[in-house]
Order: sequence, then C-alpha cells, then structure tokens
Amino acid sequence: MTTAQKGTVYLVGAGPGDPELLTLRALRLLETADVIFHDDLVPEEVLALANRHALVTSVGKRCGRPRITQQGIHALLIESARAGQSVVRLKSGDPLVFGRAGEEIAALRAARVAFEVVPGVTAALAAGAALGLPLTDRKSASKLIFCTGHHATGKDETPVWSGLLPEDATLVVYMPGRDTSRIARELSLSGVAQDVPCCAISHAATSRQSVAACRLQEFGTLECGPAPLLLLIGRAMEPLLEGAGMPNRVREIVSQAAEEAGA
Amino acid sequence: MTTAQKGTVYLVGAGPGDPELLTLRALRLLETADVIFHDDLVPEEVLALANRHALVTSVGKRCGRPRITQQGIHALLIESARAGQSVVRLKSGDPLVFGRAGEEIAALRAARVAFEVVPGVTAALAAGAALGLPLTDRKSASKLIFCTGHHATGKDETPVWSGLLPEDATLVVYMPGRDTSRIARELSLSGVAQDVPCCAISHAATSRQSVAACRLQEFGTLECGPAPLLLLIGRAMEPLLEGAGMPNRVREIVSQAAEEAGA
Repeated sequence: MTTAQKGTVYLVGAGPGDPELLTLRALRLLETADVIFHDDLVPEEVLALANRHALVTSVGKRCGRPRITQQGIHALLIESARAGQSVVRLKSGDPLVFGRAGEEIAALRAARVAFEVVPGVTAALAAGAALGLPLTDRKSASKLIFCTGHHATGKDETPVWSGLLPEDATLVVYMPGRDTSRIARELSLSGVAQDVPCCAISHAATSRQSVAACRLQEFGTLECGPAPLLLLIGRAMEPLLEGAGMPNRVREIVSQAAEEAGA
Repeated sequence: MTTAQKGTVYLVGAGPGDPELLTLRALRLLETADVIFHDDLVPEEVLALANRHALVTSVGKRCGRPRITQQGIHALLIESARAGQSVVRLKSGDPLVFGRAGEEIAALRAARVAFEVVPGVTAALAAGAALGLPLTDRKSASKLIFCTGHHATGKDETPVWSGLLPEDATLVVYMPGRDTSRIARELSLSGVAQDVPCCAISHAATSRQSVAACRLQEFGTLECGPAPLLLLIGRAMEPLLEGAGMPNRVREIVSQAAEEAGA
C-alpha cells in the first residue's frame, strides 16, 4: 500500500476535476501527505479527500494576480521536504503537460530532494471522453497535437501553430484565451480547411461543462464558455456537428447540476 | 458511489499497466461489471481487480494473430449490453488515443446502446513521469505531438511525420515498431536537428521498464527494448542525456523486480 514518504516531493496529477478521475496512487498520496500545495484549478471536491491533518495551501497564480512566484513555489517544496515532511504538489490534469513541472523538477534535482511524478488524466482526454469522440481515428486523425494559446492573453505573439498543420491531426489548444477570431485566422493560415469542425469545451468533465461547436468558417464568432476552456479541432470532431448524443455520464452530471441549481 | 449499469458499455482506460494508475472510476467499474472485454496489453495485476463473478475475455489482436475482428468486438459489446449486462471494454492507456475506440463508439451509437468513456493515463504521460521529465517546457517544448509508427510493420508507407516538424515540440511515437533507422531518417527529413535527444522506453512505468537514449545522429542504431515501446523525441529529453537520475518510484519497482527475479 502506497503512503507518502517523509522528505519526498510528489508531483501529482489531479486529473480534470472529477474526483473519480483521480488515480488510486494520487488518492493514497493525498490521504497520507503532511503538506499539499495545489493549483487554483484543483476543485474543492478533490481537496476534500486530503488527510485532514495535512496543511493544504493554494499556490495558484490565476488571472494575472500573482500570489507567489515560481521560485517561491520551489523554495516551499524544498524546505518542506528538508524539514522531513511528505509533500504533494498537486496540479490539475497531468503534471507534465503545460504545468511548469519541468522547472520544479529541475529545482528539486538541483537541491537533491527525492521526488516522484504521478501522472494524471490530462484535460484533452477528459474532454474527448465527455464528448464521446475519439481523439485519434484510423481514417481521419493519425496525429494528436497539444498546444497552448497563451499568446491570446496578449503577452506572446506566437501563433498556436506555425507552418502547415497536418490534415490528419486532431489539434487541442489548452488555455486558448478569449480571442477565437485570432485563433481561427491562425488555423486558416496553417492550411486548415474552412469546413473542419472546431469545438470549444468549458469546464470539461465537470457539472459546469458546456460545449459549443461549429466549422472553422464560423469559429471566429463562436460563443465559448468560461475558462478553463479547451479547443478541439479536426475531422474526428465531425460526429459532434452531426448531432451525435453525449454519453450517459455527462448528461447525468450536467442534468444533476441543473436540478440542484433549480432546487 | 459508481456502479456499472446494466445495458451500458463502458469504454475504460486501464492506464499504462501499474494498477495504482487506474482511476477510481475505472476500479469501481471493474469491481461491478458483469462482463469485461480487454486488450492483450492489459496486465494480469489489473484484471485481478475485477469482480470475481465477472466474465473476463481477451479480445486482443496482438502480434498479427487475429483472434477476433473489430466487427466481432462490436457484436460482442452490443449483444452483451442488449442481454442486460453491464459491460466494460478495457483498453490499455486511454481509450481515445490510438485505441480504435472511434469505431466502437460509432457502432454503439448506431445500435443505440448506452455507453460511457472513462479516460485513462495514456502511455506518453506515464513514460514522462517514469523518466521524471516534462513533456512540455516553457523554453524548449510548447507543443506535444502523439503519432504512431504503425508503418514500421511494413503495412503502411506513411512516415511518422510529413513536412517540417516544429522545433519546439516533443514528439511521442506510439507503436514505433523495430525499424529505428527508418524513423531516424524520417525525422531528419522533417528537419529535426542531429543533436536532438531521442529516448526509447519499453514497458514504461512497469517493473519491466527499460530505457535507452541518444541523440538523433545515433538513433538509427540504438538498441531498444521489446514492445510495448514508446519513443520520445525533443529538447525536453535533454536532462536524460545529461545523466539526470530517475525518480524514486521507478527505481523502486525496477529494483524490486530484479530482486524477485534473482530470488
């Protein structure tokens, strides 16, 4: 049976938000760690599973309100481990996908602090599951590409994709920002056909999930839900535009949430 | 508490093989399903968690020995659900990533059988965790690309990547086959620099894990471990060539397996 070891830092993926999508290992580490440092995106339902004696601290840096620097996070992790505590660094999704885990790993290695990475279900996989759509497909999508739309915040001018995007790819844009017209323009420049399906999914795999979909030609004016938002672009999304129904689970949690809101 | 519903098919990701990397939802479905159809890659340790009254059947098609057709799998899923059973279709990794789930979903939709997709930890994420290396990095890897090397079996002449591969990408090749010299040639043609790190990881995140790494210029002659094999290519793998140590967990399970083999 896994228990969190003293003096060790665990970089743990919390998955997309649904506590049932935690891994068994993530759950056991949450149940036994002395200290937990988590991102803002990790929901209350997941944090509620932590050992009730654990010190649980948010080190989130969301919405441009920096509360702690990346260096500050490194120092917290290293000091806690050196003080003999078992430390969980909890990140939404998978820690190695757009989670700045590389910088934390480098800092832990430099400080010779023992660490372990516990993978998690990254948002793209949860979104595909919630939509009931494959991300790869033998006919239409032999490549799956994750990129970020950080630039949409205005800090960075790099497009989501430069050069020709393969026709047989599903492109997933993490953190796309609000400017869909810019992303639509960039995709057109990368050779994506105007009739390729584009889907925006907000709060994927949670009770607040909402989905909007259209073809690239209308994408610039698509009304998307709030962050956390994920874009899925490619021929594999075609059933969505053909009106394929959602799988059970999603209908269930979304309608349950609607009932609770109405009650 | 989740239980598998009668008349429903659950397409469930079993993760990379380590039972602790199952999601809570996957575990609960395994514990309550009437029937389980699994791929050959799902290990005994995971199947051992199934309800002991469940009918557990392999529908694997590995190593060119077709035991059942894809159509045959669809028929099994549909018939079992229609007979009022709760059905788990268990796939290694995540069901939507190179798992032919799209075809099974289309068949279930056409037959109006209720279904749900339960995402899992895909092999690439488990490999990154086992290596203690990020798959994306703010400086060197702002894109993460999954593709397959199916072609290496000789059935398909499509290269793993056509055209220019972005410099700031981590490329993960699933099912690369044995012909690394062909993949090395294709990567060179796609503009990948000769000094880019290439890593081959066999049986990632299991007790049989083995890792080989070099730069692209030597990749054509690299001795890789047996399938299931995964290639990770990109600047984010640099620490591996600089001799960065593996995280705890992997050392632990690999050395434990070595001890058991020696005992």
